[in-house]
Amino acid sequence: MSMSAARDVSGTRERLVVIGGDAAGMSAASQARRLKSPEELEIVAFERGHFTSFSACGIPYWVGGDVPDRDRLIARTAEEHRARDIDLRMRTEVIRIDVAGGRVRARDIDSGAEYWTSYDKLVIATGARPIRPDMPGADAPGVHGVQTLDDGQALIDTLTRTRGRRAVVVGAGYIGVEMAEALINRGYEVTVVNRGSEPMSTLDADMGRLVHEAMEGLGITMVNDAEVTKILTGDDGRVRAVATQDAEYPADVVVLGIGVRPETTLARQAGLPIGDHDGLLTDLAMRVRGHENIWAGGDCVEVLDLVSGRERHIALGTHANKHGQVIGTNAAGGYATFPGVVGTAVSKVCDLEIARTGLREKDARRAGLQYVTATIESTSRAGYYPDSALMTVKMLAERRTGRLLGVQIVGREGAGKRVDIAAVALTAGMTVEQMVSLDLGYAPPFSPVWDPVLVAARKAAKAVHAGTSQ
Amino acid sequence: MSMSAARDVSGTRERLVVIGGDAAGMSAASQARRLKSPEELEIVAFERGHFTSFSACGIPYWVGGDVPDRDRLIARTAEEHRARDIDLRMRTEVIRIDVAGGRVRARDIDSGAEYWTSYDKLVIATGARPIRPDMPGADAPGVHGVQTLDDGQALIDTLTRTRGRRAVVVGAGYIGVEMAEALINRGYEVTVVNRGSEPMSTLDADMGRLVHEAMEGLGITMVNDAEVTKILTGDDGRVRAVATQDAEYPADVVVLGIGVRPETTLARQAGLPIGDHDGLLTDLAMRVRGHENIWAGGDCVEVLDLVSGRERHIALGTHANKHGQVIGTNAAGGYATFPGVVGTAVSKVCDLEIARTGLREKDARRAGLQYVTATIESTSRAGYYPDSALMTVKMLAERRTGRLLGVQIVGREGAGKRVDIAAVALTAGMTVEQMVSLDLGYAPPFSPVWDPVLVAARKAAKAVHAGTSQ
Repeated sequence: MSMSAARDVSGTRERLVVIGGDAAGMSAASQARRLKSPEELEIVAFERGHFTSFSACGIPYWVGGDVPDRDRLIARTAEEHRARDIDLRMRTEVIRIDVAGGRVRARDIDSGAEYWTSYDKLVIATGARPIRPDMPGADAPGVHGVQTLDDGQALIDTLTRTRGRRAVVVGAGYIGVEMAEALINRGYEVTVVNRGSEPMSTLDADMGRLVHEAMEGLGITMVNDAEVTKILTGDDGRVRAVATQDAEYPADVVVLGIGVRPETTLARQAGLPIGDHDGLLTDLAMRVRGHENIWAGGDCVEVLDLVSGRERHIALGTHANKHGQVIGTNAAGGYATFPGVVGTAVSKVCDLEIARTGLREKDARRAGLQYVTATIESTSRAGYYPDSALMTVKMLAERRTGRLLGVQIVGREGAGKRVDIAAVALTAGMTVEQMVSLDLGYAPPFSPVWDPVLVAARKAAKAVHAGTSQ
Repeated sequence: MSMSAARDVSGTRERLVVIGGDAAGMSAASQARRLKSPEELEIVAFERGHFTSFSACGIPYWVGGDVPDRDRLIARTAEEHRARDIDLRMRTEVIRIDVAGGRVRARDIDSGAEYWTSYDKLVIATGARPIRPDMPGADAPGVHGVQTLDDGQALIDTLTRTRGRRAVVVGAGYIGVEMAEALINRGYEVTVVNRGSEPMSTLDADMGRLVHEAMEGLGITMVNDAEVTKILTGDDGRVRAVATQDAEYPADVVVLGIGVRPETTLARQAGLPIGDHDGLLTDLAMRVRGHENIWAGGDCVEVLDLVSGRERHIALGTHANKHGQVIGTNAAGGYATFPGVVGTAVSKVCDLEIARTGLREKDARRAGLQYVTATIESTSRAGYYPDSALMTVKMLAERRTGRLLGVQIVGREGAGKRVDIAAVALTAGMTVEQMVSLDLGYAPPFSPVWDPVLVAARKAAKAVHAGTSQ
């Protein structure tokens, strides 16, 4: 690890300091390096973990065995970043940001040594931390989170060692359902314990119900409306069951997939602006509000939801990469923006595909929007074509204007990525009536003559017209 | 067949006459019937063939064996239409439209009987006819078109009877490549003879080249730059080879997939407006220009290309169905429009997926547009996820403005329907720079962290910026 390089500051070149060596931070560093030579811009990046630029979203597929080894999930290693003249310091935690002084205090985790590093420009990409329930037994052996590669390895080690075959997943969001698939693939009996009334609370409950039924069809036991109160351990100290208010679910292994929160402890201490969802607030160029030379991106920021007009927190690698690209461009003196999100997400449990974009019913109400809904069932291919699979599409449109507000899709192969049609239409502010005329790819192996999204749009347009007189 | 019903005209109800009982015509009739009762609107439809509402696009999959029987391709039978109070007259050809008199002359093909039927409103949905080369041998036994179900059945009969296993497909557009797949699936040695420099002239030649290579990889012999001069027959009168200017290709069966032209003979005789591509010209409500009570739709019309601003002819079931819906609504006194197309098409040859939307390079030049191009290679899923497949995406953007002009995609599973992202973006008039920020569905089984379409947009945006100073 060459720290000397960092201190060898020439008179004119600027120093960019990056806190966090994952998607947003290292994308920012790489993009800045593409645009500025080491003579113009020195780049120092701090990462407290063992890995850089890894795909957290890939962990369920590594645990489940679809991805054979950990290293496949690392997009770029520390060595590769260093070869591109980024002074990347691993296992080094930033413990303070001194905004007034334009410097950060770093601590080498292994040696405990601390030092200040000054910056001309700062990027905060501290990511998110998993929500760990504050309950007895949450730290017992056999209870695992799945946020980092170390977490994934620890879980795989447990799965390899454990003889029992009963797994309980706490949480039924994306991580929860993906981990349910991973554990099914490894031959476990899987129970998913969920606080909500249906799995996938990022969908409306009527669509979540379809996920529920499909998961049970896959042999997964789904327990809804259940709050985990404690994790019970055996005489050996290891997990033996998960307890809710009503029942106990025996478990040889427990996976916590409850979600994440922005990691903004440092930013908060430094007095930087934090939003209602605990994320850093930035402008559209990803500059921290009120700070000309500080940017933030990835899982630690809030982003503008283009449909509701409000800030949201969404932890997703695809956004983190885009933020990094925008930050790197701006930090290197260029110009780029991240205009916001429409809230697109796609996931799967075995062969069940789940997708959503835009607002759910409750989001629309919260935003003060009145809406109509339309739900249709159609197929991924022409009905007569082999492997044509059913899918359900739900669409929300604004009352009177007919503007598309959101789409949710649950189905089999070919269902999930159809959400992109709606994501682009939402971004463009299209009405459902306009969507009916969209010129989408049609051939029998790819779509019915009316694409399912268009069938939903047609029904939604009808509902808008029926309601306009009210 | 109840003709009496048609003559039993009450004093006030109107009569809608539909010429052509396939997608556009019967969609129009069905939609009009949904909106108007038989007491308000009488609907008479003439179809000269044996079938209604069938999927011509499905014929290659029926011939190839993916679709087990013909009846699966019939979306709605004549009996089903009649049960919904549509007076459908099969095997009845309209041989004249008398616009001034508001009537059409029909001929019962089997009996030869002719009669006039008056109309208050008329729908022309006469479809397209295949281009049959005017050359010796084109009508020989063993030479087949694939436009109608009768054509499909005749080809299947030939394939069943013929002992030889050599097939020549003339034409390398959608029909040609899909028929190549069908014949491969039936165990034939397939040669495709193509006039252009590469297959799929709906793509630029550099992308067609990828299709060429993939087809050869599938064991299909691809002959480009070859004009078929005659079809040679044996002593038994059956086809034995296809001759070009340079060579002869032995053939036990020949499939003609050269394309289609609007069937507008009747419309032309009636003095209705015909465009540069031989199609009827309509307004955006699908009303024949200058004729308040005549509509036309489906393969016999020209449509507005929203990207170039010009009329085009595109024979595609998905458009025909939309036209029918719009016409039926308007003919029943409602309001709907078909705003135009962006030229989206998707197809496959075995596991190779081919898609395009918007303008090719030559279309852009013809429209007076200057453009930049970007071509990238990426994968359908995260690189580390199983079955992640390569795809090539080519993007055209307008010089200076950066407006998206077109996208072409060639790849394997997951490539084809990605064109919908671009189709919606084209419709919305987005720039490639705006597309870079699109919030598309991301999870490792569905997409790399940067969707291939976004990677192409990023590269195209760079090319636009590099070129803006010029």
